[in-house]
Amino acid sequence: MKIMIAGLGLIGGSMAKSLKRAGYAVAGSDRPSVEEAALKAGAIDAIARDTAAYDVVFVALPPDAAMQFIGASAFREGAIVADICGVKGVLEKFVYSAPRVFRYVGCHPMAGKEVSGFENSDASLFDGASMIVTLCEKTDPAALSQLKELFGQMGFGLVRECTAAYHDEKIAYTSQLAHIVSNAYVKSGTANGFPGFTGGSFQDMTRIAGVDEEVWTRLYMLNLPAVTAELETLIGHLSEYLAALQGGDEQALKELLRQGRLRKAELDREKKIL
Amino acid sequence: MKIMIAGLGLIGGSMAKSLKRAGYAVAGSDRPSVEEAALKAGAIDAIARDTAAYDVVFVALPPDAAMQFIGASAFREGAIVADICGVKGVLEKFVYSAPRVFRYVGCHPMAGKEVSGFENSDASLFDGASMIVTLCEKTDPAALSQLKELFGQMGFGLVRECTAAYHDEKIAYTSQLAHIVSNAYVKSGTANGFPGFTGGSFQDMTRIAGVDEEVWTRLYMLNLPAVTAELETLIGHLSEYLAALQGGDEQALKELLRQGRLRKAELDREKKIL
Repeated sequence: MKIMIAGLGLIGGSMAKSLKRAGYAVAGSDRPSVEEAALKAGAIDAIARDTAAYDVVFVALPPDAAMQFIGASAFREGAIVADICGVKGVLEKFVYSAPRVFRYVGCHPMAGKEVSGFENSDASLFDGASMIVTLCEKTDPAALSQLKELFGQMGFGLVRECTAAYHDEKIAYTSQLAHIVSNAYVKSGTANGFPGFTGGSFQDMTRIAGVDEEVWTRLYMLNLPAVTAELETLIGHLSEYLAALQGGDEQALKELLRQGRLRKAELDREKKIL
Repeated sequence: MKIMIAGLGLIGGSMAKSLKRAGYAVAGSDRPSVEEAALKAGAIDAIARDTAAYDVVFVALPPDAAMQFIGASAFREGAIVADICGVKGVLEKFVYSAPRVFRYVGCHPMAGKEVSGFENSDASLFDGASMIVTLCEKTDPAALSQLKELFGQMGFGLVRECTAAYHDEKIAYTSQLAHIVSNAYVKSGTANGFPGFTGGSFQDMTRIAGVDEEVWTRLYMLNLPAVTAELETLIGHLSEYLAALQGGDEQALKELLRQGRLRKAELDREKKIL
């Protein structure tokens, strides 16, 4: 099985390294300087020049670049092409907007770091993590099962299958909204002088605040209705607490906090069931 | 030096255990069942019956109970009395509302867990953590320096000195607001089915969602103007992102994210300087 990874950043580089760790030969492509670094680090065995030479092509590029790459490249008939973008509906729609000789599976690894680039890639980045794969009626079951085997060998602890629409709805909430909240949270003037005034809550709330605006703006634009709805929902909930605080309404505030506590317990139970 | 701890929950119990670890004899008081558990666990050497018998009394109770305890107890002349409440202005005002024979220092350890009670207390809870002490013109420098020595022996890595007003303003933001955001974040209907759809952002955002509403409602009520102002500020910022999303304004969204990223970098630099 000949494997290629297009894009050797944090995710692509980590995919290459984890596949190498599992004993596979891997070819990769990126800017020349990154290709050289990946070769030197032993993350790839060769620079990939001809996409049509590979059985499996992972497209580890941001959404717009991924669609451009998939649209402009020649693939082997029956090749598995899998992107790793954080939005899936637009990718799936793009892929199936034309007849394709390859078999497409949308993927989104639930692993990352606050830093990017090949220099931060890591063979163990996916160990125990969840890989989401998005399926539709056109998905080839054999391609899916081959990828699932690879993902297990790369260290993923779980493969979660769903539709692209379901993925985009969940991710708008679990990831995209969280990054907005974190990015907004640090903007208070009170944040200056915070060292010594936190035991961890503030760090957790702001860990992901430093988003790359080029990447994330596109992710938001490509999942606009879902993320807009989630932010509206959160602001609506926060406004209930604000009204209670502004009115000095102790009972209302207590009830809001109680509902949140019960909801958290419900989600913790869901997590245990999985 | 005879030390007493009133209240042997997560914080009081951990203070007792860390003081024992440092070689001190410690007396404690709580409900009879907790006193027995603390004795049995070796966290305290004796049950404290007479507050006037101690040189240092840590009041590890929630704010209302702490004020009641301080107001109703007899203390030795010159004893050091230190509360550990998460709001400091109301405590200081209460203490100095009457002539006192003891020397008061307001304290707030920046350490905790998502669980409470003596059963979760831990000798190493404060290791490396920050202890905030709040000072005013009535604070006795000798009492402060004796406490700082004790805090170092208990494992604290840093003692941060400030006024009660400064503490309350910072904590409204770093801790109180964070708990509201976390508590509100879980209320989205989209949260159900989250397992497999997060790489850590969602967990970080919601770790502290399960607040004890009895404790936290009081903390909010006792620091109402500061926490109200912080929540207003956050909702204001979030509303800017919402307007950009609703308008599909990619440039505005990118600029908002960029400002947040720069702000985060600024705060990270502040942290390194400390």
